[in-house]
Amino acid sequence: MSAPDRFPALAVHGGAGDLGPDDPASSGEAGAPRLEGVRRACAAGWAVLETGGSALDAVLAAVVALEDDPTFNAGTGSTLTSAGDVEMDAAIMDGATLRCGAVAVVRDVRNPIALARAVMDRSEHVLLAGPGASAFAREVGFPAVENATLVTPAQRARFERAAAARAPPGLAPGPGSHGTVGAVARDARGHLAAATSTGGTSMKRPGRIGDSPIVGCGTYADDALAAVSCTGRERIMRLLTLARLAAERVGAGRPAAEAARDAVAALGARLGGGGGLIVVGPTGEPGSAHDTQVMARAWIGADGVLRSAL
Amino acid sequence: MSAPDRFPALAVHGGAGDLGPDDPASSGEAGAPRLEGVRRACAAGWAVLETGGSALDAVLAAVVALEDDPTFNAGTGSTLTSAGDVEMDAAIMDGATLRCGAVAVVRDVRNPIALARAVMDRSEHVLLAGPGASAFAREVGFPAVENATLVTPAQRARFERAAAARAPPGLAPGPGSHGTVGAVARDARGHLAAATSTGGTSMKRPGRIGDSPIVGCGTYADDALAAVSCTGRERIMRLLTLARLAAERVGAGRPAAEAARDAVAALGARLGGGGGLIVVGPTGEPGSAHDTQVMARAWIGADGVLRSAL
Repeated sequence: MSAPDRFPALAVHGGAGDLGPDDPASSGEAGAPRLEGVRRACAAGWAVLETGGSALDAVLAAVVALEDDPTFNAGTGSTLTSAGDVEMDAAIMDGATLRCGAVAVVRDVRNPIALARAVMDRSEHVLLAGPGASAFAREVGFPAVENATLVTPAQRARFERAAAARAPPGLAPGPGSHGTVGAVARDARGHLAAATSTGGTSMKRPGRIGDSPIVGCGTYADDALAAVSCTGRERIMRLLTLARLAAERVGAGRPAAEAARDAVAALGARLGGGGGLIVVGPTGEPGSAHDTQVMARAWIGADGVLRSAL
Repeated sequence: MSAPDRFPALAVHGGAGDLGPDDPASSGEAGAPRLEGVRRACAAGWAVLETGGSALDAVLAAVVALEDDPTFNAGTGSTLTSAGDVEMDAAIMDGATLRCGAVAVVRDVRNPIALARAVMDRSEHVLLAGPGASAFAREVGFPAVENATLVTPAQRARFERAAAARAPPGLAPGPGSHGTVGAVARDARGHLAAATSTGGTSMKRPGRIGDSPIVGCGTYADDALAAVSCTGRERIMRLLTLARLAAERVGAGRPAAEAARDAVAALGARLGGGGGLIVVGPTGEPGSAHDTQVMARAWIGADGVLRSAL
């Protein structure tokens, strides 16, 4: 492969999903908050790459920006469980070393992706969940935040509506439930990284873990293949290990955008679809695909220009 | 494929690992309790297949038998966390429908694999962890058991030794730490299923989730590919989605035993090894491979004869 193919590259997503009646994107505002959010996060990650930083640090910076943006269902702005609480999942993976770290059912932490990074760097494990993850967070110096500070008025109102409708626990997510976030990057040295963070599905049962923090399903990075972050319904994990499937397509020589389309097509053929993903390979432009109505995304490739789409 | 290739088949394993100084297998008893245990479990699963039952029911019966056997690190006999408690992980997957169910960091339940089956059959989710998994267990009628009833004298003694040595939380498992259990089956209709259950690594941090309950990593089943259950060090998840890798090799035409060897070779080449797996495909004999000192296993193929090896 020629050196010019190996420019730094970054892509971020703000979740694949369908539009709800109360969704700004369907009421004429054209998803402006989501587009602005993914553009800001992409810029935050790019600032790392531009100054010679690693892909791993870039995806961390991008996902922290998305978690802190109340528009998205991750960190601040997470959906609520059937118990009215926030429980978050996140994972990060380093394509250079195949190390990864993840947290699930985590509370009391402002940035789950940063805690996932700490699991990777500072524990002997890959995935920590629940009170054990909180105990580890305190041990490594993450301040405890009140979960209430992570709850936005929009998510509280949504929960109250579902509760008033006596929706059973674990209600399948309806329109407007999207918002999982993720980032993939390649740095100047050709290393890859991926990160994904989510509040999970609306009205999920307490203790439910989705695809996002599961390496190979929601998140995957291997310098020899690709970096991938997935988003979508609770179907990806059980069928396809979708992130790894897309990564293998890139490893077999497909450009990132085609690998992403292949993965979405496989999801549709086997389980009816309902998801999307972003992909960056060892060379070339980043790519994405989704079969839902929208997936806010932003990316920067060879020309260094920030682009975005809903 | 010809009909005679599609005989029912079953394999079970009692965990890949190296021998410790206090291990019966290294003191002349030749692993008799482990061999007896996997043979009993294989017979329990076979009784289901023989009477026309499904692969899914067969792997459930086999893993329940292994969980109830105090010899193995799953259910009764699970290793203890750094807090001296039992926290168990389990997953089951149906190759016919690609449905799966899993539990992690679960307490107060005698048979985690049965709870994983309930998550698959009776919840809207794939993976439930911690107190939320316990709440679901009570909701669907699983009696609460005292965790103390799951702790064997051998595991308690092992914990006391590690605690006396002031081992830090998350201590890497030493010799004798094996004992994850699993089963794969093909029924008379050609459907596949896989199940895996474990107490995890000895002295793990509370909240740690390993590879076993992660679909694609510890457990995978797809009628179009194969059924696979993996066991080994905390490396499988992050690298290879090992169960899916082996399944894809079978899908590409490799016999089960060769696919298992390919998977162990890939694990060794990329991360130094330390694991094993059992595999059964849509046709042919079940197979296994491991690169640890021992992996107790038992299987039944075309001739209906129960075989076993350590």
